Amino acid sequence: MLSFDEHTRVRLNKFSFLVILSLFVLASDFVLVWEVMVRRKCRSRGQSQGEEAVEAAQEESRSERRKAQLAQWRDKFIQNLQSAGLLMEKVHVKKTVHYLKLHAPWDVLVYYAEELRLRAPLQVQPHPDYNTSARVLQKLWVPNIMKDSVPNRPVDYYTCAFRKFLGSDDRENYFTNTQRHRIVYEILARTVYGRRKRAEVGVARLLNEGAFTGAFPLHEVRHKTPYTLNKRQVLYHYWSNWLKWYKYQPLDHIREYFGEKIALYFAWLGFYTAWLLPAALVGTCVFVSGILTMGSNTPAKEICESGGLYLMCPLCETCKPWNISDICPMVGYLFDHPGTVFFSVFMSLWAVTFLEYWKRKNATLAHHWDCMDFHEEEEPPRPEFAAMAPAMEENPVTGVKEPYFPEKARISRMLTGSMVIVIMLCVVMIFLVTVIIYRSIVSVMMFETGSSAGNIANISSSLVNLALILLMGQVYTALAEQLTKWGRLSAHIRPHKATHAQGFKSNQCGPGGCLIELAEQLCIIMVGKQLINNVQEFVIPKIKSWRQKRALSSVKKAQKAEEPKRWEQDYELIPCEGLFDEYLEIVLQFGFITIFVAAFPLAPLFALLNNWVEVRLDACKFVCEYRRPVAERAQHIGVWFIILEALSHVSVIVNAFLIAFTSDFLPRLLYQYKFNNDLHGYVNFTLAYSPPSYNYSSHTVCRYKAFRDENGKYTLVYWELLAARLGFIIAFEHVVFFVLRVIDWMVPDIPESLELKIKRERYLAKQALADKQEAL
Amino acid sequence: MLSFDEHTRVRLNKFSFLVILSLFVLASDFVLVWEVMVRRKCRSRGQSQGEEAVEAAQEESRSERRKAQLAQWRDKFIQNLQSAGLLMEKVHVKKTVHYLKLHAPWDVLVYYAEELRLRAPLQVQPHPDYNTSARVLQKLWVPNIMKDSVPNRPVDYYTCAFRKFLGSDDRENYFTNTQRHRIVYEILARTVYGRRKRAEVGVARLLNEGAFTGAFPLHEVRHKTPYTLNKRQVLYHYWSNWLKWYKYQPLDHIREYFGEKIALYFAWLGFYTAWLLPAALVGTCVFVSGILTMGSNTPAKEICESGGLYLMCPLCETCKPWNISDICPMVGYLFDHPGTVFFSVFMSLWAVTFLEYWKRKNATLAHHWDCMDFHEEEEPPRPEFAAMAPAMEENPVTGVKEPYFPEKARISRMLTGSMVIVIMLCVVMIFLVTVIIYRSIVSVMMFETGSSAGNIANISSSLVNLALILLMGQVYTALAEQLTKWGRLSAHIRPHKATHAQGFKSNQCGPGGCLIELAEQLCIIMVGKQLINNVQEFVIPKIKSWRQKRALSSVKKAQKAEEPKRWEQDYELIPCEGLFDEYLEIVLQFGFITIFVAAFPLAPLFALLNNWVEVRLDACKFVCEYRRPVAERAQHIGVWFIILEALSHVSVIVNAFLIAFTSDFLPRLLYQYKFNNDLHGYVNFTLAYSPPSYNYSSHTVCRYKAFRDENGKYTLVYWELLAARLGFIIAFEHVVFFVLRVIDWMVPDIPESLELKIKRERYLAKQALADKQEAL
Repeated sequence: MLSFDEHTRVRLNKFSFLVILSLFVLASDFVLVWEVMVRRKCRSRGQSQGEEAVEAAQEESRSERRKAQLAQWRDKFIQNLQSAGLLMEKVHVKKTVHYLKLHAPWDVLVYYAEELRLRAPLQVQPHPDYNTSARVLQKLWVPNIMKDSVPNRPVDYYTCAFRKFLGSDDRENYFTNTQRHRIVYEILARTVYGRRKRAEVGVARLLNEGAFTGAFPLHEVRHKTPYTLNKRQVLYHYWSNWLKWYKYQPLDHIREYFGEKIALYFAWLGFYTAWLLPAALVGTCVFVSGILTMGSNTPAKEICESGGLYLMCPLCETCKPWNISDICPMVGYLFDHPGTVFFSVFMSLWAVTFLEYWKRKNATLAHHWDCMDFHEEEEPPRPEFAAMAPAMEENPVTGVKEPYFPEKARISRMLTGSMVIVIMLCVVMIFLVTVIIYRSIVSVMMFETGSSAGNIANISSSLVNLALILLMGQVYTALAEQLTKWGRLSAHIRPHKATHAQGFKSNQCGPGGCLIELAEQLCIIMVGKQLINNVQEFVIPKIKSWRQKRALSSVKKAQKAEEPKRWEQDYELIPCEGLFDEYLEIVLQFGFITIFVAAFPLAPLFALLNNWVEVRLDACKFVCEYRRPVAERAQHIGVWFIILEALSHVSVIVNAFLIAFTSDFLPRLLYQYKFNNDLHGYVNFTLAYSPPSYNYSSHTVCRYKAFRDENGKYTLVYWELLAARLGFIIAFEHVVFFVLRVIDWMVPDIPESLELKIKRERYLAKQALADKQEAL
Repeated sequence: MLSFDEHTRVRLNKFSFLVILSLFVLASDFVLVWEVMVRRKCRSRGQSQGEEAVEAAQEESRSERRKAQLAQWRDKFIQNLQSAGLLMEKVHVKKTVHYLKLHAPWDVLVYYAEELRLRAPLQVQPHPDYNTSARVLQKLWVPNIMKDSVPNRPVDYYTCAFRKFLGSDDRENYFTNTQRHRIVYEILARTVYGRRKRAEVGVARLLNEGAFTGAFPLHEVRHKTPYTLNKRQVLYHYWSNWLKWYKYQPLDHIREYFGEKIALYFAWLGFYTAWLLPAALVGTCVFVSGILTMGSNTPAKEICESGGLYLMCPLCETCKPWNISDICPMVGYLFDHPGTVFFSVFMSLWAVTFLEYWKRKNATLAHHWDCMDFHEEEEPPRPEFAAMAPAMEENPVTGVKEPYFPEKARISRMLTGSMVIVIMLCVVMIFLVTVIIYRSIVSVMMFETGSSAGNIANISSSLVNLALILLMGQVYTALAEQLTKWGRLSAHIRPHKATHAQGFKSNQCGPGGCLIELAEQLCIIMVGKQLINNVQEFVIPKIKSWRQKRALSSVKKAQKAEEPKRWEQDYELIPCEGLFDEYLEIVLQFGFITIFVAAFPLAPLFALLNNWVEVRLDACKFVCEYRRPVAERAQHIGVWFIILEALSHVSVIVNAFLIAFTSDFLPRLLYQYKFNNDLHGYVNFTLAYSPPSYNYSSHTVCRYKAFRDENGKYTLVYWELLAARLGFIIAFEHVVFFVLRVIDWMVPDIPESLELKIKRERYLAKQALADKQEAL
């Protein structure tokens, strides 16, 4: 590495030092914070007696040693930062909270800009119009209310990798704020604070050890309003504003302020929300068409008009027989009519098409933001890891000795991906298991106490399920964190298999049909979970930031007269926790709406409503409640895309099985084909007579829903139906997967216009190079 | 583009001209050939009378005009080549065959080397040991007979993209022969011979028009034996030699002489052949285990010992009833026992694992040969296309006007890929259709004339099928060529659906079972087709080269005394036709062995034997019978890999259906589960009684293979079995595809050691750059 003696020399040169210092007051790039508690309480306690005192004294001395260690590390770290060329200014707040403001001078910036391959602007280019909806509306001459004229739109440049000779006269504004942050963060991450051999490197580990309590770049001022809005103010007024709910997000502004990684998340969220519109529309239509055709449906009419015709067998030992007309009106029909099958197919195709077009959108954005060729750098060993490494080994790439975890990298990467898929599958399991358990509970309760109690049981069970899922979510997240931390699969979670109710009831769903039960639960979970989540997201940051403020209030009292400084304000905010939770929430939602679409066609609508709130809520969080994160680059949404793809495939399979086995679609079709196209007598067709053994024991003959003969054996129709069901699954899966393949193959991953543009740019670059060399 | 006036000037400088000329005699890079026929015959004909004479004269004048046109183009082309800096020497052979030897001087080479981003050698590095089998054997201390010490192994270099300043003192040997060829070919392809606007550019179109009859780089001498072997002689003795059939191919030598594209084909072929070994082994075991267990199989014994117990219904109106013991011995059992199911699963996994490991091998080779970052350049419009372009349009990348085909590029690319898949699927169709048609033919013939005639029909039908497939292959290839040429899907080929034999016979295969019929045909086709193909490949080039020689013999007579020059010898060879046919043949074979594995477990063995021959046969062709092709670079085997993947997926589906519906596996399993674990009475179980309507019309009661009751209706067992079959398909597909996914995901596409090496190299390069810049 280059030593920065030159810079130190420059710094010592008095004149330039002054010049730089004057600039420096204007722009500090990064703030390091640490707190030194003066332990008065301990001393007062020290007067207690005997062993306790000794113990206390020991503990105190231990903590004192620890503090000394931390202080030593801190000092060495700051010293090394200085010799790496960073300029710094210290601010104390009553000797307890210390702020160290860092600033990178031009030479440091230039060196690291080249090393990090930052992009340097070459030439202004016009903004591409990358919203397909905007383009379409413009072509149709429809005024586009989603368009919003946000001030200070960042200029779009042709760029190239930064080279030293590209330096500019306007040294203060040549690098953007986010670039400066990245450079300073890179220095902070590389600087040694102890022994290199022990991997005592980088600010992340120091934060972890507690030597610093904060390391963050400064936000721009939010509250004061000068003549022009600064970047954060623009975001505050035009993005995180609830009144802008129907507008496009100002993605370029987000990218300028937060970096590509966060901008890409919001772009994806917005894109997904937009794609939910057609799904919600079709879903609502399917639901409404169900309501409209319910009256004219023959089996529903037959059930409601049957009166005492079909005496049903009691569902438990102590229950009484009941009439099938009791379950009228047939709400189940809403979730189980031919439209549902159509909607399942539609949503499978929708999911894949959505992913295909997201690839295109992603490529467009990545090109627009110059991240196309960006590959994530090899991560250095994480500070948490480094601390617990069992061995030191030579890094085969750099040849430097580093803390070593055998097979760590690959396994942890594999786990991160696989865990989320496992989570998703477990959620699916929970659903299926709960439906089965719940079915028996409801069927028992319902016929002991009457119909209304059944409804109560129904809803309460869903609520329990919701609580369970929320809890499970927490457990799984914690688990996933633990797993990535330990890099080892320490626990296999297998949901207990519910014991099947045996006997002649086993084939019987609740009286309203199978799908309706699933539907009710999904409805409650979908709406409930999202509401709770949103409230959580809204309230928790508030609480956290209130706690942070209160902790600092004692310190602040002393200087109440002064106006709080920017670094103090930012220190009061909560640290940004990354995008994992945000992605997880939406990916789970995507799983819900694609996997259980056959059970609940309104799911996309609720998802749409939720996401409209979610976008602005997340925006608020990032603009007002988080400390400013260091801008990171990203080419795509990473592992989440793979998970989305896996989910969309799982959804096809689950849908095929749901339609085949839980819906009445195939029995109805079979009856139409074999007996009566109008479905007259269908209800009778689906009901079996109770076996003689049951009748003899002083019961009357009753009916139950199954295809069995008088001896309880399966009839020929049962096997026919089973063959039809399995045949349906095969046909459904093969056709849908084939169509998905074709879609995948027909829609190019990069839009043609963009591909052309990239080629054109490459050609021009080559041309320019040739010209230049000719000139030499 | 740079004009090469400098070079022209250099050439005119007398001294350097002589120097270069002296070198030039040693190394001519490329040869252009054209023939000018002196049309004596026409004149003698010209004496005939009237209209004919006029017509002949007209035609003559037309052909004269054409000849003049060609000559003009040729002259202009050669002139332009000269001004592009190429040196040339003309050799006439009796004024009819003209040879033009081309040579690229140093400056031209340097300019184009940079433009084409050729790789320049930097530093010698040790050869990686990239044969896994060699590594394994070495670890086990087993002597490796496959290892062969081939002389003159090319040195392996660290390379970088060529830059002008990298020039060397040893100008004659700095660029390899293949690099020189590529450069000269690039110049030939770019040089204008007519009007640029009409896209009258490039030697390919001139060859097409007939202005030249040949354009090829020179082979090295094969026959004379100097003290050291040259590259071609090494290949001749160590590669295309039949005695080397058990040795590794000298891939580095092949790459050095023929370029990466061809070397990659042979690497793939060798890799595939090696992977066929375990498949052939397991297949043979399965087959042998079938033979061994045949005697102890209960249903087979029951059939053979039944005597007159089961009187079978006649298979046609005029046939007589027959006893089921007539079909003894049960050859069908060989192809239809539990091992077959195991082998199907095995081959599905084998196919996917093979493809996964090929990816790794490919990555290793691509890295070793420096093609990792190579992307195929945008192809210029093909000369055949250019001639028939309907319109001129500006190329959106370069801004130059070019012949334009609307939507051409994408559609033709899509077609090339899709056509081959369609071909494969059609072959599958043909099989299935033929089996059905042939079944009825055989069943009729067999029972009119006795059993031996049936066998004859059986075999003859297979032969007809073989002929059909060979013919179809020709038709399809021609079609594919036409299609890529026209870039339009001009014909949809749909094989006619065979009319199902209706009635109570429809569920009945030939007497030996369904799989055996498929197996017999596959056997004949597999062995027959490959034999014929190999003979074709061996004989056709011989015939072609004999014709070529004969055509030139009249010319050669005159100069018999002289020894034939190298360019004359090469011109006598046949032009290299590319790798399309070679790939197609092996990919079809891969399709056969994976898709019909359930029907014919010996297929991999025959494929293995065929490929052992194929490798050396193709080697012979390339070394001895083809003109030397221009070395091309390639990163992977391209679209063929996608086709292989599609085939491996299709094979899983086809296998699932074959096992479920044509094999006796599931009926046997069902019988074991429901009735008797020992399969006693199984034969009776599968046979139905003929319906009363049939019995009344003066027939006796007879049996036929179906699950129907006395009235011809399907029994409950039929539906149970159908459900089991469909359930089996679902289970089989889901399990196998899931395992395939897991394999795909567990096996990284690039071996870890290679990935590490690449990272290490990148790190060192970065380091070196940093050091250099520090030094500046």
